[in-house]
Amino acid sequence: MPNARDTRMNRLFHVPLSPFCRKVRLVLAEKKIEVELVEERYWERDADFLRRNPAGKVPVLRMDGRTFAESQAICEYLEETCPEPPLMPSDPRDRAEARRLVFWFDDKFHAEVTSKLLYERVNKKITGEGYPDSRNVKAGAQAIKFHLDYLGWLLDQRRWLAGDRMTLADFAAAAHLSALDYISDVDWNRNANVKDWYAKIKSRPAFRGILADQVPGFPPPAHYADLDF
Amino acid sequence: MPNARDTRMNRLFHVPLSPFCRKVRLVLAEKKIEVELVEERYWERDADFLRRNPAGKVPVLRMDGRTFAESQAICEYLEETCPEPPLMPSDPRDRAEARRLVFWFDDKFHAEVTSKLLYERVNKKITGEGYPDSRNVKAGAQAIKFHLDYLGWLLDQRRWLAGDRMTLADFAAAAHLSALDYISDVDWNRNANVKDWYAKIKSRPAFRGILADQVPGFPPPAHYADLDF
Repeated sequence: MPNARDTRMNRLFHVPLSPFCRKVRLVLAEKKIEVELVEERYWERDADFLRRNPAGKVPVLRMDGRTFAESQAICEYLEETCPEPPLMPSDPRDRAEARRLVFWFDDKFHAEVTSKLLYERVNKKITGEGYPDSRNVKAGAQAIKFHLDYLGWLLDQRRWLAGDRMTLADFAAAAHLSALDYISDVDWNRNANVKDWYAKIKSRPAFRGILADQVPGFPPPAHYADLDF
Repeated sequence: MPNARDTRMNRLFHVPLSPFCRKVRLVLAEKKIEVELVEERYWERDADFLRRNPAGKVPVLRMDGRTFAESQAICEYLEETCPEPPLMPSDPRDRAEARRLVFWFDDKFHAEVTSKLLYERVNKKITGEGYPDSRNVKAGAQAIKFHLDYLGWLLDQRRWLAGDRMTLADFAAAAHLSALDYISDVDWNRNANVKDWYAKIKSRPAFRGILADQVPGFPPPAHYADLDF
């Protein structure tokens, strides 16, 4: 019964540079959950894919006989069902801080930076939407400075973004920054705290898959996969 | 020591028609957590407010000696620390479905509908950004039909949006729809399931505060607070 087996296999529908997919891939790898990666051209709005997620977005995770959508819902599910190693603090107040920072990146950083740099430079070309709007690129390049400074300020007070331990907040931040680093849009010399933090997270085994990504037409710069960047 | 007492008081910084604030207000009221509501003109970027939440957004909750930001981080915190009555299912798979729908409304519905109708018609006037863009209003009026149909389809199979019990997903949906209903932008006759569901949630005591909201310059229509709408 190959079909019955197929439905039990863990499968993540993703695109390589999506920060939301990268966040989920990091969590899966950190928790050592094996998963088959399937690239999904979500913008073609394939009927099978829309049945899996009527929102038409990646990531979508097929696991435990169910289909999961929305990256943060997926991460919370993985944390609840595969608690080792923990990626959320144990104190509810610290959990709220970790979640605040996840949303900081997935909402604010995404709107002000990722969508203005990565989507303009890469997604528009891949999905056939045309050329980058230089006003957006300029605004994104300006906004990322403020965000790097904010990260640096947090890391003045904390070992990891949400406190003393690595959490989903670090993965959300690293997911966005790694995707932007793939197109050389992160100035790692702006803040030493941020560079040290990224060096720590980049050297984790869970990061290997992401550092091996190759997007046709967009070769990564040499420093992208270099642990000594 | 009036100051020491002040800092222990629960206080929610909000604006009345924000769906993100409404979601938190519904959760607080359902869990019978008393809170002082403080209207925050977040667009004026007051320095004290930016210290509380550098993202510059509402809602911000002051509670248990800490400051919490990001509506979903706040709701998860309230669920973890004040579990009665539960607003999340007990099965992790069902929790993932409830969270998926929260993000459906707070991300997709917000981008396609709330920001195109409520923000164009109301927020722009309040914050002095000018007149509504009629293309956005038209796109929002079109998009809400698809969302009401999707809600109706879910409610064909379930008593509440995420399953047999009322969850955060229902509050997220009701928060957006109630804010749009304040400006008469919801066609309750489009889908009988949706109207029945909204009648159920609207009649809960937790909804009373929201139905009593009055925004200067924008009187609500007569049906807004009417339980028999």
